[in-house]
Amino acid sequence: MTPDLISIRDLSNAAIENLFELAAEFAATPKRRLSLATDAVLTTLFYEPSTRTRMSFEAAMLRLGGQVISMADPGASSAAKGETLADTVRIVESYADIIALRHPREGAAKVAADFADVPVINGGDGAREHPTQTLLDLYTIFQEKGRLAGVTVALCGDLKHGRTVHSLAQGLARFGARVVCIAPPGLELPAGLQAMLATQHGLECIHADSLESLLLAECDVLYVTRIQKERFADPLEFDRVRSSYMVSRDTLTRAREDAIVLHPLPRVDELDFSLDGDPRAAYFRQAAYGVPVRMALIAALLGLKKVDDLHPAADTVTPAPDFHCDNPRCITNAERGIPAATASFSDGALRCAYCEAVQEEVVV
Amino acid sequence: MTPDLISIRDLSNAAIENLFELAAEFAATPKRRLSLATDAVLTTLFYEPSTRTRMSFEAAMLRLGGQVISMADPGASSAAKGETLADTVRIVESYADIIALRHPREGAAKVAADFADVPVINGGDGAREHPTQTLLDLYTIFQEKGRLAGVTVALCGDLKHGRTVHSLAQGLARFGARVVCIAPPGLELPAGLQAMLATQHGLECIHADSLESLLLAECDVLYVTRIQKERFADPLEFDRVRSSYMVSRDTLTRAREDAIVLHPLPRVDELDFSLDGDPRAAYFRQAAYGVPVRMALIAALLGLKKVDDLHPAADTVTPAPDFHCDNPRCITNAERGIPAATASFSDGALRCAYCEAVQEEVVV
Amino acid sequence: MTPDLISIRDLSNAAIENLFELAAEFAATPKRRLSLATDAVLTTLFYEPSTRTRMSFEAAMLRLGGQVISMADPGASSAAKGETLADTVRIVESYADIIALRHPREGAAKVAADFADVPVINGGDGAREHPTQTLLDLYTIFQEKGRLAGVTVALCGDLKHGRTVHSLAQGLARFGARVVCIAPPGLELPAGLQAMLATQHGLECIHADSLESLLLAECDVLYVTRIQKERFADPLEFDRVRSSYMVSRDTLTRAREDAIVLHPLPRVDELDFSLDGDPRAAYFRQAAYGVPVRMALIAALLGLKKVDDLHPAADTVTPAPDFHCDNPRCITNAERGIPAATASFSDGALRCAYCEAVQEEVVV
Repeated sequence: MTPDLISIRDLSNAAIENLFELAAEFAATPKRRLSLATDAVLTTLFYEPSTRTRMSFEAAMLRLGGQVISMADPGASSAAKGETLADTVRIVESYADIIALRHPREGAAKVAADFADVPVINGGDGAREHPTQTLLDLYTIFQEKGRLAGVTVALCGDLKHGRTVHSLAQGLARFGARVVCIAPPGLELPAGLQAMLATQHGLECIHADSLESLLLAECDVLYVTRIQKERFADPLEFDRVRSSYMVSRDTLTRAREDAIVLHPLPRVDELDFSLDGDPRAAYFRQAAYGVPVRMALIAALLGLKKVDDLHPAADTVTPAPDFHCDNPRCITNAERGIPAATASFSDGALRCAYCEAVQEEVVV
Repeated sequence: MTPDLISIRDLSNAAIENLFELAAEFAATPKRRLSLATDAVLTTLFYEPSTRTRMSFEAAMLRLGGQVISMADPGASSAAKGETLADTVRIVESYADIIALRHPREGAAKVAADFADVPVINGGDGAREHPTQTLLDLYTIFQEKGRLAGVTVALCGDLKHGRTVHSLAQGLARFGARVVCIAPPGLELPAGLQAMLATQHGLECIHADSLESLLLAECDVLYVTRIQKERFADPLEFDRVRSSYMVSRDTLTRAREDAIVLHPLPRVDELDFSLDGDPRAAYFRQAAYGVPVRMALIAALLGLKKVDDLHPAADTVTPAPDFHCDNPRCITNAERGIPAATASFSDGALRCAYCEAVQEEVVV
Repeated sequence: MTPDLISIRDLSNAAIENLFELAAEFAATPKRRLSLATDAVLTTLFYEPSTRTRMSFEAAMLRLGGQVISMADPGASSAAKGETLADTVRIVESYADIIALRHPREGAAKVAADFADVPVINGGDGAREHPTQTLLDLYTIFQEKGRLAGVTVALCGDLKHGRTVHSLAQGLARFGARVVCIAPPGLELPAGLQAMLATQHGLECIHADSLESLLLAECDVLYVTRIQKERFADPLEFDRVRSSYMVSRDTLTRAREDAIVLHPLPRVDELDFSLDGDPRAAYFRQAAYGVPVRMALIAALLGLKKVDDLHPAADTVTPAPDFHCDNPRCITNAERGIPAATASFSDGALRCAYCEAVQEEVVV
């Protein structure tokens, strides 16, 4: 059983801190090719286009001294011939020492990890998790601010739908950061997530209802996300909200000298181009941190560098032959041959072991 | 003139046995990167999507220590601009030391081999040949059963259309295996092929008309292939046939303890997922054998390892300026600039030198 | 500020000669992998399909000992999510030591060079420049004829539209070659370009109105380009012109023994296949020269080999906040966030700093 990274929850705080030390070590010699992974091949299996994430994984592996095989085009894949993901990974594992997977279905990464005999990294499974994005977000704050504990991070934009921002909020809470939430009505951080942050981490989110009213002077980090038109029934309302959530040079005049602006990218117009010249605009540095962070993760999962607390994907899963997940976006509702299973987390809810969706009607 | 692999017939039994020794040597140190092909570049030219075959070639080259350039997307190719395959390979040979080609047209691999000054490996040319699949099928049986001579192999499913199964039947016959054919009415092994196996190799195929009646206890290997819906006029008849040709855990209760089940993959539902846990289910091991087999082939064609009897594609070809192949799927009927030629094989029939189709009306 | 190659004009004659010496040095050990760029990664960012150019860059980098990350599929790119090229290159520069860019918009390569902190090579920006093609064309003539000064080169076909032929004409003029122009009525070399060649380089183009009347015996090089159907209102006229511009074995009977025929490829039917066996048919050798030429360029831009006079893309650019380029194919008319700027060249005309189109109505 090889270790995987399916969810940011798979990693203990100690493991994350270890990975950050390793990333900083790699970042100290940028644009070099190390001789660490000379025997290893990474296969990027991307069932959804995501050039940047794929390239970042490939750059990380090449910098470690390894090699890469790439499947970047969903149309050219065996999936088009009706092959299941489980079958594909059982074949691809013979071509690779480690797999980075992007897939449109929730829970896909766990299926791949369960069937593959090599480590699997979740490069995004539908709207669910994208743990390497969370790692690099946390690492960026850690590097730029020198710490995570006590840092005040404003999360800004659509806080309801984005997996990026949900995972980040949990990661920040785990490391003792303070979180300020600023979202348009209807796009607030989900109540369940807020309750969980409060119960498990003692984090009370501070709320602000607009960028204007936000006490920018108190924020160390402004993390901006896109607000999508599809979320609004009324296009005029969308235009009004969008413009009040745009961050510009003018916004920064009210921010601290040492604050930083982050964004998972790509941006559309929520970050004005006029910001780019300001040293506080850290979003391109943030993207660049993705390479050393992914180097650290690959090196750790391959056992080339020692990081404790890494483990296979499937810990707390209960086989449940008659269980059917009621989440229509779950991989188990798209592919045959996946053993039915449930899992139960600290919130006590019964969940699908793959997509982790809480089940409305449970038939076990 | 460099050696190529266009058809499994290009390889003598001695050459195949040599390749198998080499593959076993490479397989003994899996997941390593050798320093054998450090100066060499493989170009995978795939005019048809086939992620698995492409990745297997690329993994093989990387494991040998070489490098890879990939053309995986037919839409992005120069072919879309009207360039002939002959022109493309004459350019690509300056980027590569060896080419692996997949092309929808029969005879395409021979055209590439004729025009390229580097070795060409046929990774599938239309419905004709896919010799590295045949090699890895034979190698799988050799590794798993310890020998080919005297092994009893049941070929099961659509034996009429599959190039995989035709090449495998010939390969088995050449090495003295016994072949049991089990196919639905109308999808039997072609009579011409059976006659050839009998005449040239003394192989009398044994026939069984269903999986039920098959004496599984006598079979060392069950090689399953897909039955395609398109082959049946009546969908109900297809459903009936398909279900009687599905191999399940129950089928294996009647098989020998040391039998193995093979399949060229991808499977759809002809191999039940319940089989996967049985050690006799060898189809994923079969896919994995593709890497050392392709390593052996690449190393041999590049002259990095000595294998006798390798030679260029074009031995027994007669220039014939006025000849036109009457096979509409032949590459010569899609592209200009290919010298017309005929070839004659041991069966005495006149054939197109590229697609090797027997000509109905010969104009030479 | 890193050096770039956006236009062939960026390179002095001395720099070009240096690059040619370097290319010849690399060409002397073909099909080897050097240990020169072992720390470096090339990213090929291709927003337009161009398999051959992409593969040639990738082969060059692999031969230098470096590694490659490839974006070959425009549909899978972040551009499809609305990201600007400027944003993409600011991210990609953290994955690469050097970028080769192909983009459908004129001026795109300069935008990339301005925003990237690593060297950018223009692999074709719309109909504007493709400087590595020009370099390899000049290098081919230099290698095959031993010199450029005094060589007589016939440019043949559509001389009005092709960027290849415009850049080549300027390159030839700079090195003292003689140019013979042979084009159908309406597809002649633009008058402005002819005037520039005369004024700046003292080159008076010789004109011939058909291949028939061309004094082939006086030409050292026949450079053929395609005539496209779209350029003709009357299909019959196109057929007539095309057939009179086809170069065949018969054409060569009137050419010199030591003449060579070149073509940027892919050809359609302007070069008859019957030519291919003639040693004077140098177009496949020409394509092969692309690898050592691109090796030399990459090695020089990365500072691995010393070539003088390399410099960043943006020398003579004047910021002009209110300027809007009137060329609809210019990158500045497709993307936001690019600082408006003008440039002025030796012809005194005011031009867009990106696409370099002369402005009809200037608002500065």
